[in-house]
Amino acid sequence: MIETDILIIGAGPTGLFAVFEAGLLKLKCHIIDALPQPGGQLAELYPKKPIYDIPGYPEVLAGDLVNNLMEQIKQFQPGFTLAETAETIDKLEDGTFIVTTNKGTKHHAKAIAIAGGLGTFEPRKPEIENISCYEEKGVEYFVKDPELFRNKKIVIAGGGDSALDWSIFLADVASEVTLIHRRNEFRGALDSVEKLQEYKKLGLVNLVTPAEVVRLHGDDHLTAITINSDGQEQTIETDYFIPLFGLTPKLGAIANWGLEIEKNAIKVNNALDYQTNIDGIYAIGDVNIYPGKLKLILCGFHEATLMCQSVYNRLNPGKRYVLKYTTVSGVDGFDGTRKEAEKAVVKSID
Amino acid sequence: MIETDILIIGAGPTGLFAVFEAGLLKLKCHIIDALPQPGGQLAELYPKKPIYDIPGYPEVLAGDLVNNLMEQIKQFQPGFTLAETAETIDKLEDGTFIVTTNKGTKHHAKAIAIAGGLGTFEPRKPEIENISCYEEKGVEYFVKDPELFRNKKIVIAGGGDSALDWSIFLADVASEVTLIHRRNEFRGALDSVEKLQEYKKLGLVNLVTPAEVVRLHGDDHLTAITINSDGQEQTIETDYFIPLFGLTPKLGAIANWGLEIEKNAIKVNNALDYQTNIDGIYAIGDVNIYPGKLKLILCGFHEATLMCQSVYNRLNPGKRYVLKYTTVSGVDGFDGTRKEAEKAVVKSID
Repeated sequence: MIETDILIIGAGPTGLFAVFEAGLLKLKCHIIDALPQPGGQLAELYPKKPIYDIPGYPEVLAGDLVNNLMEQIKQFQPGFTLAETAETIDKLEDGTFIVTTNKGTKHHAKAIAIAGGLGTFEPRKPEIENISCYEEKGVEYFVKDPELFRNKKIVIAGGGDSALDWSIFLADVASEVTLIHRRNEFRGALDSVEKLQEYKKLGLVNLVTPAEVVRLHGDDHLTAITINSDGQEQTIETDYFIPLFGLTPKLGAIANWGLEIEKNAIKVNNALDYQTNIDGIYAIGDVNIYPGKLKLILCGFHEATLMCQSVYNRLNPGKRYVLKYTTVSGVDGFDGTRKEAEKAVVKSID
Repeated sequence: MIETDILIIGAGPTGLFAVFEAGLLKLKCHIIDALPQPGGQLAELYPKKPIYDIPGYPEVLAGDLVNNLMEQIKQFQPGFTLAETAETIDKLEDGTFIVTTNKGTKHHAKAIAIAGGLGTFEPRKPEIENISCYEEKGVEYFVKDPELFRNKKIVIAGGGDSALDWSIFLADVASEVTLIHRRNEFRGALDSVEKLQEYKKLGLVNLVTPAEVVRLHGDDHLTAITINSDGQEQTIETDYFIPLFGLTPKLGAIANWGLEIEKNAIKVNNALDYQTNIDGIYAIGDVNIYPGKLKLILCGFHEATLMCQSVYNRLNPGKRYVLKYTTVSGVDGFDGTRKEAEKAVVKSID
């Protein structure tokens, strides 16, 4: 059982920043995310795209913003349960919660902050009969660990950035990479498309277009796939099939937790602390809805901050909270580190 | 008459960022501030201090944050009325406003956003009879333009960072610098105190401690001051007297605008758009108050953003606003510049 003060569901920028604000209040956080790495959309969908509306950053790459947030919260040592989704929640008699993931990992928390963004990013799955039978037995919808594919034969399907970039990256790892796309045109960064063209000419990536995977073969594990290319079928041997057809956000199991939902988002009390209709469960960032809501990262930062204050007051009833400015009082990490402004000296002059 | 869409009162981080969010909505901003430069407290009180709780910045110097915000809003060409304070407000029949400063500058705006922080920073004035008669006639509470003091005799009073730093800086500008402090101990950055010690030894700054200025002399303009040092009085010739005893924030004339005030702050509707009790006047950042309010810069950023949305809706009734992400749609400046993410290409591979 993982124990924490605030269990944050979603490791996007809002969820990450909540760790910092909680840390200032000496509250410990643990984060669950369906993706294999922190950062949410920013890390998974557009790490190399610039964002222009983060206050104080005329321009910042989404991936850099995630790295900066990770650096900012490092000293508060958040725990992570990655590549798992929150499934069930139980409220105990003492007002605390137990959240269990799809893989059975249990988390015990004093408060819950849902920072789920647009929802759990679930892969768009190709319509191939029995594909679910091969999941984790040769079919992978994400590249979680490239080493899984070392010296293996792999087939990637898709025509976007992920398909292009992983084909190029894995060409150096796998023994054989085949990229299949239903059209001959690829949509992606110019340098990725050009690099793939080069890799194809060098024979580092086999390209089969226009084509679709129609059948999977193998007993305990995938061994081959059948491709339909302009009505012609061929079967090729492969150890892994990686369809990269994009991600669709789904609110998922959270939708069944008894929370008030409106327009696929969770209603919160924006006049106070972004708490949901269930006492002790908050929703912050893109996942929530209230009058005038804007789905902007900077709004998530504010909501995360007020949520942490509310949790602090909840856990310390009657204790008067005095806001301390980091510039004045410094920041004490849970790891023993301390950041602080250089102090003024009082010194006489002869 | 200065014409603008949103008149922002206060050039601190919240007021500055409002220019960016307004710009995205094609709304023009003009900012009034009592200080001679933008940045509010950050630029005036602690430009060299690190801030640790700006989201995405593990550490940023206050002065750098201001510079970054100025860079971020540059393309939206905000106007500035600096070193003046907003005094009176008139609401016209068409719902627009005219704001007049203490120096008579008039601004005509469709909406007002008070981003006044803790208030107007007013200098703490020493208790010297008739000092007000010499204001702008030899007595200066700020160093707005160091050139004013070129080849002049100046007396600075105070024992903190401002007094130390300006004594050192102006030693190269003025013909004679005298620093007076009621104690022999100075409070400031170590290197400033050490540098002053050196300047004193080199005869670049005359130090008189413990001492106080007790009388001012001169007809049309200051010509001399009398100092009391341990009961002994002496009169020295000087062109300027610059008391740097710190700043006190005062809500000032805004307190008489008919706004609902609570604990020296302006009450706003935080459940929607941070509007005050007067339709069309908003209060954002440290100057406002609502249940759960935290006086943090990051909260001001959020409040500024929702305020701009509300003004947009106010000025474009019935028009459906569709949120555009800067990452997707780019940012078009009023100066003709454009920032945008590199677009994906669609390209076939042979």
